[in-house]
Amino acid sequence: MRDVAIIGYGQTKFGELWERSFRSLIVEAGVKAVEAAGIDGKDIDEMYVGNMSAGLFVGQEHIASLIAEHAGLNPIPSTRVEAACASGSLALRQAVLNVASGASDVVLVGGVEKMTDVVDATSAISSASDQEWEALFGATFPSLYAMMAQRYMYEYGLTLEELSMWSVIMHENASKNRYAQFPFKVTLEQVLNSSPVAEPLRLLHCSPVSDGAAALIVCEAEKAKEFVNKDDIIYIKASVQASDTIALHSRESITSLKAAKVASEKAYKMANIEPKDVDVAEVHDCFAINGLILMEELGFCKKGEAGKIVYDKKIAIDYDGFPAVNPSGGLKAAGHALGATGIRQVGEIYWQLKQDKEVKDRQVEIKNGYGITVNVGGTGGTVCIHILSDKR
Amino acid sequence: MRDVAIIGYGQTKFGELWERSFRSLIVEAGVKAVEAAGIDGKDIDEMYVGNMSAGLFVGQEHIASLIAEHAGLNPIPSTRVEAACASGSLALRQAVLNVASGASDVVLVGGVEKMTDVVDATSAISSASDQEWEALFGATFPSLYAMMAQRYMYEYGLTLEELSMWSVIMHENASKNRYAQFPFKVTLEQVLNSSPVAEPLRLLHCSPVSDGAAALIVCEAEKAKEFVNKDDIIYIKASVQASDTIALHSRESITSLKAAKVASEKAYKMANIEPKDVDVAEVHDCFAINGLILMEELGFCKKGEAGKIVYDKKIAIDYDGFPAVNPSGGLKAAGHALGATGIRQVGEIYWQLKQDKEVKDRQVEIKNGYGITVNVGGTGGTVCIHILSDKR
Repeated sequence: MRDVAIIGYGQTKFGELWERSFRSLIVEAGVKAVEAAGIDGKDIDEMYVGNMSAGLFVGQEHIASLIAEHAGLNPIPSTRVEAACASGSLALRQAVLNVASGASDVVLVGGVEKMTDVVDATSAISSASDQEWEALFGATFPSLYAMMAQRYMYEYGLTLEELSMWSVIMHENASKNRYAQFPFKVTLEQVLNSSPVAEPLRLLHCSPVSDGAAALIVCEAEKAKEFVNKDDIIYIKASVQASDTIALHSRESITSLKAAKVASEKAYKMANIEPKDVDVAEVHDCFAINGLILMEELGFCKKGEAGKIVYDKKIAIDYDGFPAVNPSGGLKAAGHALGATGIRQVGEIYWQLKQDKEVKDRQVEIKNGYGITVNVGGTGGTVCIHILSDKR
Repeated sequence: MRDVAIIGYGQTKFGELWERSFRSLIVEAGVKAVEAAGIDGKDIDEMYVGNMSAGLFVGQEHIASLIAEHAGLNPIPSTRVEAACASGSLALRQAVLNVASGASDVVLVGGVEKMTDVVDATSAISSASDQEWEALFGATFPSLYAMMAQRYMYEYGLTLEELSMWSVIMHENASKNRYAQFPFKVTLEQVLNSSPVAEPLRLLHCSPVSDGAAALIVCEAEKAKEFVNKDDIIYIKASVQASDTIALHSRESITSLKAAKVASEKAYKMANIEPKDVDVAEVHDCFAINGLILMEELGFCKKGEAGKIVYDKKIAIDYDGFPAVNPSGGLKAAGHALGATGIRQVGEIYWQLKQDKEVKDRQVEIKNGYGITVNVGGTGGTVCIHILSDKR
């Protein structure tokens, strides 16, 4: 298998972009990525796009063809990949396999979702759970994650203050991200006193409904040098995916994400590193509880310890001795445009590792040169992990 | 890149299967494929599934996770690929790239669609066209293909009798296929006198709305020998995909499928064969006119000549000197369960080339040992071609 690198990244703002259409979002992100990589459209051999549900949100399937047309990229192959909120990272993984196989040298990978000014988002999002055995009985995602949080608090003694500190840190980070949906700070009191959504979750424990798109240029490692300077090349050291039951009630435990554990162990092995080697992580905090659980599945701390670490702000950008988690502001504050999220996470790590001027106000200290992303579909039915490095 | 083979195939009946659920269909096909290949669930490294719109049809996204759970395949990676009616073949192509790259040795690839006893199929299917510029103005697929047929008749003098003979041959073939939705013969008069749908298309020029699923076991060529006899291994010599504008009105010509031409030329080159070397083909006749156009794009005859060849029944199973086209009965008569179709086409060629007992009543004479499939998304926005051979 050939080595694979990232040579460019671009994204739109995430938010309630009522004046923007589905197709304009992804084209903006794609053009920015192409410009960042200094490549030309004709250098692109193939295209992938992650999207959860343009069918339900905007009545449009077959979006990979639509995007290829509107990006002027015909007749290259263009493929949509879907795995609910993990669609973006799965699209990236297919691109990595494609380049690794030798089929393509340069691949554009986008992620996009148009969720506002369309239909009722809650019912569309619930199609990521087991429709017949969860959604039909009213178990929407806030309630499913609320059950996970409730049980986690019971088992590990997590307090609401500890859980809420997650959101405080996310908003703090997002305040330095011009693409974030909520680029402002919130206090612990504001989080604790925000509207109840599903006990114990408050509004400010939940990621928002977002429009947005993000795109990466993936390139064979040797060829990457033809397009960009050495410092602008970041290598994909592991691209690993695992699955678990789509239905939460089918799991042995609802306080852990088994697929995240399986995938992260495999990813560390593939990249030949340990959790302590990670400088920076982007984890899938669709709800604050998931941020904590994923820190544990990644091996950043022991089971049940994440709450204390978060409360002590050890995941903050400027803390020394623990990986910085979600410098972008995470799904919570940077926004969660479902299909785009997995790409945006990897884009943030790409910028952080290459120390791009885009992240200068939120730059994490790069010591070992490794970053990791965890993108989750549903309540953990699909998990995809990428490890990136500034070293080949 | 490593050589890739198919070692097993299974499918459900295609039809209006009101008593069957989405999940039961794909599990049946998957289990049949696993049994045919004589493998065990734990031999499977990864899974792909092609599906156009479970979101709109049955309110379920994230189906790859759902299927992995119900097939008992957690925690292997499970990925859904979507490209409207070409979803199945695109899923297969990702599996081929995956195995070729060395990431996996054995991959299960399924395709499934549940279209009856659910919502209005016509509006869901129209989401495969440009929603804003075609569907919104009432241009459903029968009308889009009717425009292609109308123009083709004008440009090349195709007669309605020639076009109708396509359906006569498809039903003749399907009468020997126990999985076909319409396993009975029709006369030329019946086709000509069937209800008008969109001028010039009659009901019997159109493929039906179908429930169904199909699954293949894809395996690295060397490892294939561990599971099945030499005669049960069929090799994938080319897996090629191309895209064109999603909107019909954006094309230079509406009487040809440019993406099919681009992909077939590349596929022949990759397989190192010419059109005349093909013994058997399965082409995407969602409407009869597309069967004719695809014969031309595949280089089986010159532009404008397909009508006469079809009328002379040179595409029939027992005709000597021309590739047999759609021995299964095609989408027209075997049925068109959107996401399953691309897999079913390859499954038919697999059975034909290995001369499986399943196709003994419709066995094509295998001379050169090559078969080809063409799977189309929308009106040709996505095209995916596979060339199979009994020789490595």
